Amino acid sequence: MFEEGATLKKRYGEENVFDLSLGNPVMEPPVEFRQELKRLTEHPLPGMHRYMGNAGYPETRAAVATQLSLETGIKFTMKDIIMTCGAAGALNVVLKTILNRGDEVIIFAPYFVEYRYYIDNHDGVASVLPTDEQFIPKLGVLEAAIGAKTKAVIINSPNNPTGTVYSEDFIHRLGELLRKKETQYGTHIFLISDEAYRKIIYDGLKYSSVWHHHPQSIIVTSHSKDLALPGERIGYIAVHPDCSQREELVDGLIFCNRTLGYVNAPALMQHVVQHLQQVTVSVTEYQKKRDFLYDHLIKMGYSAVKPQGTFYMFPSSPLEDDVAFVRELQRWKVLTVPGCGFGTPGYFRISYCVDDRTLEGSLVGFKKAAQKFNLG
Amino acid sequence: MFEEGATLKKRYGEENVFDLSLGNPVMEPPVEFRQELKRLTEHPLPGMHRYMGNAGYPETRAAVATQLSLETGIKFTMKDIIMTCGAAGALNVVLKTILNRGDEVIIFAPYFVEYRYYIDNHDGVASVLPTDEQFIPKLGVLEAAIGAKTKAVIINSPNNPTGTVYSEDFIHRLGELLRKKETQYGTHIFLISDEAYRKIIYDGLKYSSVWHHHPQSIIVTSHSKDLALPGERIGYIAVHPDCSQREELVDGLIFCNRTLGYVNAPALMQHVVQHLQQVTVSVTEYQKKRDFLYDHLIKMGYSAVKPQGTFYMFPSSPLEDDVAFVRELQRWKVLTVPGCGFGTPGYFRISYCVDDRTLEGSLVGFKKAAQKFNLG
Repeated sequence: MFEEGATLKKRYGEENVFDLSLGNPVMEPPVEFRQELKRLTEHPLPGMHRYMGNAGYPETRAAVATQLSLETGIKFTMKDIIMTCGAAGALNVVLKTILNRGDEVIIFAPYFVEYRYYIDNHDGVASVLPTDEQFIPKLGVLEAAIGAKTKAVIINSPNNPTGTVYSEDFIHRLGELLRKKETQYGTHIFLISDEAYRKIIYDGLKYSSVWHHHPQSIIVTSHSKDLALPGERIGYIAVHPDCSQREELVDGLIFCNRTLGYVNAPALMQHVVQHLQQVTVSVTEYQKKRDFLYDHLIKMGYSAVKPQGTFYMFPSSPLEDDVAFVRELQRWKVLTVPGCGFGTPGYFRISYCVDDRTLEGSLVGFKKAAQKFNLG
Repeated sequence: MFEEGATLKKRYGEENVFDLSLGNPVMEPPVEFRQELKRLTEHPLPGMHRYMGNAGYPETRAAVATQLSLETGIKFTMKDIIMTCGAAGALNVVLKTILNRGDEVIIFAPYFVEYRYYIDNHDGVASVLPTDEQFIPKLGVLEAAIGAKTKAVIINSPNNPTGTVYSEDFIHRLGELLRKKETQYGTHIFLISDEAYRKIIYDGLKYSSVWHHHPQSIIVTSHSKDLALPGERIGYIAVHPDCSQREELVDGLIFCNRTLGYVNAPALMQHVVQHLQQVTVSVTEYQKKRDFLYDHLIKMGYSAVKPQGTFYMFPSSPLEDDVAFVRELQRWKVLTVPGCGFGTPGYFRISYCVDDRTLEGSLVGFKKAAQKFNLG
């Protein structure tokens, strides 16, 4: 998609293409990031670009643990934290560590498309379950799907591509269900929570975390979105302090971080984010963009669940064939992603982490397509 | 090893432990690196921490291609280069791309221990072949070992752990052998050249590259050693422009760089190394350390092949049991790695990318151990 957008922009001019296809935040990192990077560059620490232990710098791991403790009321220490090459690196390390060949990993459609590759990388089998009309997993379906081979369930709230945020009540019931099934099969079922968008939630919503609802929980996340650093590949894994065989699990994670070839999370960024655990990009700006886009699309006759977080929206496709509809938008130089790319045909994803000019410019195309298919 | 060394240092004091166990250069990056990082920090490029195409910034790929063209006389373009999370990331991406389950990859003992994990990660089968007393692969043995399932041969010159540099003549004969076997089996056999230490060679030696000797060549390397940035995870893959099915191969490499969860090489470091392709740490300093250590060890009665590059030495263990000998050195607070860790018992590895104080301090322990086992 990155390349396709670049080609179109080359042909028609950057200003004539409205690329809403990528989760590549247009915002620059917060000013605190700039300051910290400048400080380190002007007063370098001795050896600050060398290897460290494969889990990352103790100071950085401790800073993450402190922040997580503050946010959740659960006591984390550096031993629960492994710094990684982004959330993608984190999830690969987790899956490599916990999966045996043929183990099942449950994901919910629509899902982040890379999940399927990551599960396949480590010889797992993805089991894809549906969500309801608000994009919330159906617990009845989940209950029937969990078997003796189920090693993990991956959730992603706030969700890419829908923007849905799971409620405390939902996560509570999910945790109860997992423990019921653990007892039934005599197994452990990991709840892997992909929290890449944890800090980007709207309307004053409080984030509901997995920690209070399932001890066999692992989160994977990054600073790609909250600090707008997606190219820098800096993220972490956090393991529930009460997880069974926690020490063995953490040793395995550190070992796999090494042997999968990540070796360690980029050193300089570890130094930087150590001091930025309380810093986040302006969520208000993203919320404004959501409101702007959502209001316009609804007025045009599109139908969409209002996103509560992330910077994505996942409206219904006016055509049953979402690929054809995305192609139609492309005729107007508006780039989006068909829902089938997320395992859910009949929808399309809009990414609104773009500048206002691009967002405003895209409205013409959305309007033309709405008129063509008699919406509203 | 990192953790073990840290524990000993905590117990006995940093200054009383002589850690020669890690390939973690003590040198700071060259001054040009500092300047470039500072320049970018003071005058940031718009969006310089965002995602780019999964292969890396076109400008960085082009800069690497230009430098490789200069060094080798072969015409590389950015299309032959994929920026990666270090050489470890590079090698994993290559193996994931080319291997089918059960394909054989030939490596030579002593070998970098991670190779076995990397091959296993991607369902390959490692075939370990011996080297001669100068640590050069035995071509006769290789010829007998190559079969229809042989997908690749990995070489590593300058070599970790021996410091050996392969001659032009050796690589020429290796290439001839591979093509003979390709014809015999109707297969392609990749020559994967791990060149992490390419710039660190001594005594005015000229580096002999694979490019002129086998079109089915891929190099994996990083700036961990030549710019002393091992913690930053910045490296690249280069594919021979005449490689068969080059375009398909490169597409596969870019895809695997994405789906293995690396996504892209760290953005800021890509910007920095773009302008540092002609910069290298002071090799003279490493050569001085090699001379100092080698001369002393030989005088004490140790037996070792004199390293021509890297910052490792791989002397014979005075005890048949190299683990016992390394433990003996540990009693004198000198940390090294037993040869069995590299698939070659009866030797031990010394890493001399340490400060002079550590190197000088280690001599007492080496001397005591030499005396105990009646060397010299």
